[in-house]
Amino acid sequence: MTHPFFAGIEPVRYDPESTGLAYRHYNPDEIVLGKRMEDHLRFAVAYWHSFAWEGGDPFGGQTFERPWHPQDAMARARVKADCAFDLFDILGAPFFCWHDADIRPEAATFRESHDRFQEIIAYFEEKMATRKTRLLWGTANMFSHRRWMAGAATNPDPEVFAYAAATVKMCMDATHRLGGENYVLWGGREGYETLLNTDMGAELDHMGRFLNMVVDYKHKIGFKGTILVEPKPQEPSKHQYDYDVATCFGFLQKYGLEKEVKLNIEQGHAILAGHSFEHEIATAAALGVFGSIDMNRNDYQSGWDTDQFPNNTPEVALAYYHILKAGGFTSGGTNFDAKIRRQSLDAEDLVAAHVGGMDICARGLKAAAAMIEDGGLDAALAERYAGWASEKGRGILASDLAALSARVMSGEIDPQPRSGRQEILENYVNRFV
Amino acid sequence: MTHPFFAGIEPVRYDPESTGLAYRHYNPDEIVLGKRMEDHLRFAVAYWHSFAWEGGDPFGGQTFERPWHPQDAMARARVKADCAFDLFDILGAPFFCWHDADIRPEAATFRESHDRFQEIIAYFEEKMATRKTRLLWGTANMFSHRRWMAGAATNPDPEVFAYAAATVKMCMDATHRLGGENYVLWGGREGYETLLNTDMGAELDHMGRFLNMVVDYKHKIGFKGTILVEPKPQEPSKHQYDYDVATCFGFLQKYGLEKEVKLNIEQGHAILAGHSFEHEIATAAALGVFGSIDMNRNDYQSGWDTDQFPNNTPEVALAYYHILKAGGFTSGGTNFDAKIRRQSLDAEDLVAAHVGGMDICARGLKAAAAMIEDGGLDAALAERYAGWASEKGRGILASDLAALSARVMSGEIDPQPRSGRQEILENYVNRFV
Amino acid sequence: MTHPFFAGIEPVRYDPESTGLAYRHYNPDEIVLGKRMEDHLRFAVAYWHSFAWEGGDPFGGQTFERPWHPQDAMARARVKADCAFDLFDILGAPFFCWHDADIRPEAATFRESHDRFQEIIAYFEEKMATRKTRLLWGTANMFSHRRWMAGAATNPDPEVFAYAAATVKMCMDATHRLGGENYVLWGGREGYETLLNTDMGAELDHMGRFLNMVVDYKHKIGFKGTILVEPKPQEPSKHQYDYDVATCFGFLQKYGLEKEVKLNIEQGHAILAGHSFEHEIATAAALGVFGSIDMNRNDYQSGWDTDQFPNNTPEVALAYYHILKAGGFTSGGTNFDAKIRRQSLDAEDLVAAHVGGMDICARGLKAAAAMIEDGGLDAALAERYAGWASEKGRGILASDLAALSARVMSGEIDPQPRSGRQEILENYVNRFV
Amino acid sequence: MTHPFFAGIEPVRYDPESTGLAYRHYNPDEIVLGKRMEDHLRFAVAYWHSFAWEGGDPFGGQTFERPWHPQDAMARARVKADCAFDLFDILGAPFFCWHDADIRPEAATFRESHDRFQEIIAYFEEKMATRKTRLLWGTANMFSHRRWMAGAATNPDPEVFAYAAATVKMCMDATHRLGGENYVLWGGREGYETLLNTDMGAELDHMGRFLNMVVDYKHKIGFKGTILVEPKPQEPSKHQYDYDVATCFGFLQKYGLEKEVKLNIEQGHAILAGHSFEHEIATAAALGVFGSIDMNRNDYQSGWDTDQFPNNTPEVALAYYHILKAGGFTSGGTNFDAKIRRQSLDAEDLVAAHVGGMDICARGLKAAAAMIEDGGLDAALAERYAGWASEKGRGILASDLAALSARVMSGEIDPQPRSGRQEILENYVNRFV
Repeated sequence: MTHPFFAGIEPVRYDPESTGLAYRHYNPDEIVLGKRMEDHLRFAVAYWHSFAWEGGDPFGGQTFERPWHPQDAMARARVKADCAFDLFDILGAPFFCWHDADIRPEAATFRESHDRFQEIIAYFEEKMATRKTRLLWGTANMFSHRRWMAGAATNPDPEVFAYAAATVKMCMDATHRLGGENYVLWGGREGYETLLNTDMGAELDHMGRFLNMVVDYKHKIGFKGTILVEPKPQEPSKHQYDYDVATCFGFLQKYGLEKEVKLNIEQGHAILAGHSFEHEIATAAALGVFGSIDMNRNDYQSGWDTDQFPNNTPEVALAYYHILKAGGFTSGGTNFDAKIRRQSLDAEDLVAAHVGGMDICARGLKAAAAMIEDGGLDAALAERYAGWASEKGRGILASDLAALSARVMSGEIDPQPRSGRQEILENYVNRFV
Repeated sequence: MTHPFFAGIEPVRYDPESTGLAYRHYNPDEIVLGKRMEDHLRFAVAYWHSFAWEGGDPFGGQTFERPWHPQDAMARARVKADCAFDLFDILGAPFFCWHDADIRPEAATFRESHDRFQEIIAYFEEKMATRKTRLLWGTANMFSHRRWMAGAATNPDPEVFAYAAATVKMCMDATHRLGGENYVLWGGREGYETLLNTDMGAELDHMGRFLNMVVDYKHKIGFKGTILVEPKPQEPSKHQYDYDVATCFGFLQKYGLEKEVKLNIEQGHAILAGHSFEHEIATAAALGVFGSIDMNRNDYQSGWDTDQFPNNTPEVALAYYHILKAGGFTSGGTNFDAKIRRQSLDAEDLVAAHVGGMDICARGLKAAAAMIEDGGLDAALAERYAGWASEKGRGILASDLAALSARVMSGEIDPQPRSGRQEILENYVNRFV
Repeated sequence: MTHPFFAGIEPVRYDPESTGLAYRHYNPDEIVLGKRMEDHLRFAVAYWHSFAWEGGDPFGGQTFERPWHPQDAMARARVKADCAFDLFDILGAPFFCWHDADIRPEAATFRESHDRFQEIIAYFEEKMATRKTRLLWGTANMFSHRRWMAGAATNPDPEVFAYAAATVKMCMDATHRLGGENYVLWGGREGYETLLNTDMGAELDHMGRFLNMVVDYKHKIGFKGTILVEPKPQEPSKHQYDYDVATCFGFLQKYGLEKEVKLNIEQGHAILAGHSFEHEIATAAALGVFGSIDMNRNDYQSGWDTDQFPNNTPEVALAYYHILKAGGFTSGGTNFDAKIRRQSLDAEDLVAAHVGGMDICARGLKAAAAMIEDGGLDAALAERYAGWASEKGRGILASDLAALSARVMSGEIDPQPRSGRQEILENYVNRFV
Repeated sequence: MTHPFFAGIEPVRYDPESTGLAYRHYNPDEIVLGKRMEDHLRFAVAYWHSFAWEGGDPFGGQTFERPWHPQDAMARARVKADCAFDLFDILGAPFFCWHDADIRPEAATFRESHDRFQEIIAYFEEKMATRKTRLLWGTANMFSHRRWMAGAATNPDPEVFAYAAATVKMCMDATHRLGGENYVLWGGREGYETLLNTDMGAELDHMGRFLNMVVDYKHKIGFKGTILVEPKPQEPSKHQYDYDVATCFGFLQKYGLEKEVKLNIEQGHAILAGHSFEHEIATAAALGVFGSIDMNRNDYQSGWDTDQFPNNTPEVALAYYHILKAGGFTSGGTNFDAKIRRQSLDAEDLVAAHVGGMDICARGLKAAAAMIEDGGLDAALAERYAGWASEKGRGILASDLAALSARVMSGEIDPQPRSGRQEILENYVNRFV
């Protein structure tokens, strides 16, 4: 270990009988559906929550005290990186993710901020040369600084659009350099506070143009990773344009990007949009835009993004079930966009939260895989939709209103309800979770 | 009047000083922005809430006692029509709307149901010959009967799809015959109760195919009205595919229908989807799919569709502001998809609810028109987005990431935040509402 | 079996390896924390959802077809009772629950309705003489008939209050006669639709008076069971006075009933009030008013009471953990206030739903018991609050502002934050669920 | 004016025809229901939102740039006070409110923080000697500093309880010294993040003990103002013990404080608890604990406290209607616990937001007063509840279950539903707003 922050904490091992800090379910090399568990789950640690967030919330300030605080100096940005890679090592985390703002303090000018950024990217590169942890994705923080308060690509001021372009270029270049497998855009301020001062049509067009620029640049520099957009309905904005999966799909189509861009889906954002996590995953799969996930948990009684580590196996199992049904991850993975509670002050809390989250995901994955191997849900679907596979069904779909009306009028077609068997299927799932 | 149900209630007149049953704000012939108020608002009475609903809710049964109860006989279906047209006359309502199920009891076979339906349509036609009330839209109830419990076009059973086709054909034919200006589809069961028994991709494809059949049939019979889809996120289903405006737009694009189909937007459905009413209208306008509105009010503290008559002028004013900005209604109108409370037992309650709703809409329209004439919001928008109209702004939009990065790096571009002036704009609106 | 409705369905047995209709976890005679599992869980079947509800929702009518339909004749009320007791036998259910309205059709007069009710109560009594299923609680349906539309005890019309008194007397008498262990009041219409027509102070006083009458009558007839009030925040009313546990506790204190009345807590109602189920249980325990539970599950994405059978073990485990911590049930139990989905048409669905729910509860109970035996959560609490058990802590609590201020001002008292260890405790729980 | 921050902004005058920065409705000396408007409304400016908040939200930092930034020096704390009193003068605000943390930077020790606090209190005292603005209430910020992260009075560590006692003593002393009319406690961290680490019963007891200490101290020092508790259901905590009015009432009763403590009710907190603002006011009035209000507006589509200035007259009118019905404010008032949006950067925005809010309140008050003078709602209530005023009604209330049952059984009592007339009453209200 590079730094004493995690002193006394050993690398976490798989030990199903342990009652301490061990993986009871996550066994990276265990084969599930023909693939190593690590290669299925592709866990990533989020730099922002685990290293940049200081414990503040809207009603209170910093609670954590870290060796890299205050986060205003480059020397401490290196200490932060040291501790971050120590955590990756402790966890055996195959991936990490960052925003530019997480990894170094911003400076007075773009150029100076850029140079500081490059310095840390070089430091990362050096560390990654001897570690197994890779970059799942990079992204630009275009929502925290006051310049972004009215949006980045959708800002009423075109100079902010330009500044956003420069920022994304910088982050894409770094992502490419570090071998990142995806590049993510989350538009926390791409939306509005009030329609009274907003030209929604113009802002959508600007956002569409911006995303086209991003895709063009990707091809120009030969970045082979996936461009991912992350839906969220609101917070911090009253309304965000990337509301949910279906909304993003409509947006991508309108701007000709549905083949170029995929989605990074977060549980908490799904909940805020009125959806279950598995709904958003299944929708993205059905529409051909599934990319990656931010695995966390929102509190069902809180109306904001609580970003807690997952802890409910049945819910996580359904998420992975739909991911596996969609073919599993390609460039995507399971990023813990999750933060420990602000009362969880200790280094051990930070480690334990990740260990618990990884274990829940492992349990969920194994349950999902077992359901797929058993085939019960597939069989139930096949039976329920059997009519559509029949000649009669295909004929109906190829017909027209008048012809179908005639067949119904004649009494030839007279459908009879059949049970949807929901509880039986829920019981089935509970055999596996 | 045809029937004594509304005995003692005079036709409602415009009388701004009245404290009784009069329009204090709705003056059909008053000119607003160069057009008669009636032609702006295009009010419609909904047959279902005002004549078919008996006052039940999930925890209680019928509370209303009407001369057309029980609704199981054709003779009483005619009494219901008589009373409905009496209400239209009392209100001076220019339009009404119906589902097939509202106007006659369903019979044992499709053919018999169809014949009953035609009988009432003929009865309507006869009445409409001597009245001024026209048909804003017709629609098919494909959610109440148990055959639709698992969906209409998205049913796992293709025979239900066929039955839906026959039903829509019947309703479209009648809408065409009565001179209806639109045809609406609301897919209350086009969605799912559980993903465990649902093939979402297949269901979406079937729904897309169905809507294409509907559009084809419209052209085949020469119906000139607009096909409208009505978004709603949930209820009765756990999830409905026509979740909100943006989702519907994505769906229409995917199935090649974004030029053929527009949207009927309801306040209550907007709220359930996490949006303001004006958001949904403004979004539809920005995406080119604005059609018509269902004007009601949901209770902000209730998680289901309460469908109350509107009573908040400031909210209604913002809705009409965005409608006027979008050019106003063409074939669409203001349908009161609103029901009196189940404790509002009297005929007078039914009249008063409509009168109150129409007055609120009239107040809202006048306030919206005054804001447009004053031009304050337009001016504020123009100033806020002025940069995009400049040569520099256009150049930025036509540029690329690398070029913009160079300009930012050089310090040429360095944006400075400006106030969004939200409270000042809110105060401005309050001068008009 | 008495009736062929459940033909082909065998009594459900405990078989942990079964993939069919068996209890995989619920083993009535298994000893958990020194008590039989059946005696811990005290399962009850709800007559209303399982036998009286016909599958309707606000947008659709009946979907189920049962031998006791239509429910308007006394002969079929007996068939319904036959089938209900068949289900109790199949499940081995130790308890059931009913409203008056569930078990017989209401008649034109109170007297006739009363006589019909007695007839079925006698039929129940006869059946119970030879069965093991007992009555967990009876209750009066004072929300479905139109007479209750504006409340029962809180109705603006005192005659409705009187009618409610007669109805509760009838149901309490029957509950007593059948050996019921509790009597429940749920005030679905004790609240308001609009404050504009509501005198809240008067209504609360009337409700307080009514509940005192109920308690007096209990003592008068020598009923030894518990009087339970069931909190729910809304639906069907916009607002219900028995909003949640804490609100009910305030009400009981105001009317001098906090020693006489306890609460029946439902998961779905907790969710609608913005609480977790375990919060409501823990609150009732802390306030000394915990009585019984309605075990169901609301859909977290739906804003109304979905009343689904429970299927999430981790959630159920936390509920039973707090019940066990509170000493477990005395007269209370686990009532399935849960209904199968309206698409679940078959008799098998009804059985499977209960089996699945009972199994989830059994898993939850066993996990909760294991946590209690392990003692990890208790130990964590003891450590976290250790200061309060110290002399210093007791002294602080017995002090006053001025004295404490002096100690803080002097620097003697200068508290230092300690980790709340939330994730570590969540991981702990996940070792057991 | 003391400081150039508000340079160019004139004192705001009443001018109903103005389109600029003037009161169009708030006319302090206008007599409404026999009392000056200023004395009805008793407006207060909140130091925290208007002067201490820097524009941050969970996803972004400071946006405002003020002459008193950074807020870490006493000299600038005086500049802040200068600007605050300038705003009070510009607005003609009769009251203001503060937390200790708003008015001076906290220091390393309690004693030093205390001395800094006294210095600013003295500075306030000096200013107030020559101004008309008085103190509506003072309060202690016991939620922002990390020491409070697990609660103040409910902290697991008794030393934090003691620290809270010292803090409240300091703030009560200052409130008393400045002639404050109330003292407020808002328990933002008095609640929990997870039940797993929480002993709810103990925490409630500690909170009850603390509030008793506060009341004792009030009497000891002869403070004649009202002690107010402010309900809020959650945020920042997952659950807060002072959930809503009814919950607080139960708590006050349990700890013998229902005669000593009243409530400060906030619109935004009402919304978060699932209530309308008027519900909370009417409930507090019915329970005898109405004290004061925090007038703001939450966004109905956002699940957190948005604390916007009010802008909807019909809603505000209903709030004041219930306040006037409860006798109006005594020591309480209308505190704008509202913040300008973080994009509202300019001094003018800060002034305009207050002006708009005060005007909306004035419109609401005048509408409420007009309804009271007209008497329509009172008359409707009297008619609806007339039965309870009759001898028969009083007899029913004084009866018992058995006697009432006999009367119902005999047919003497047979209630008939009457219309609740909700829409007619809503129309009535719309004549005034």
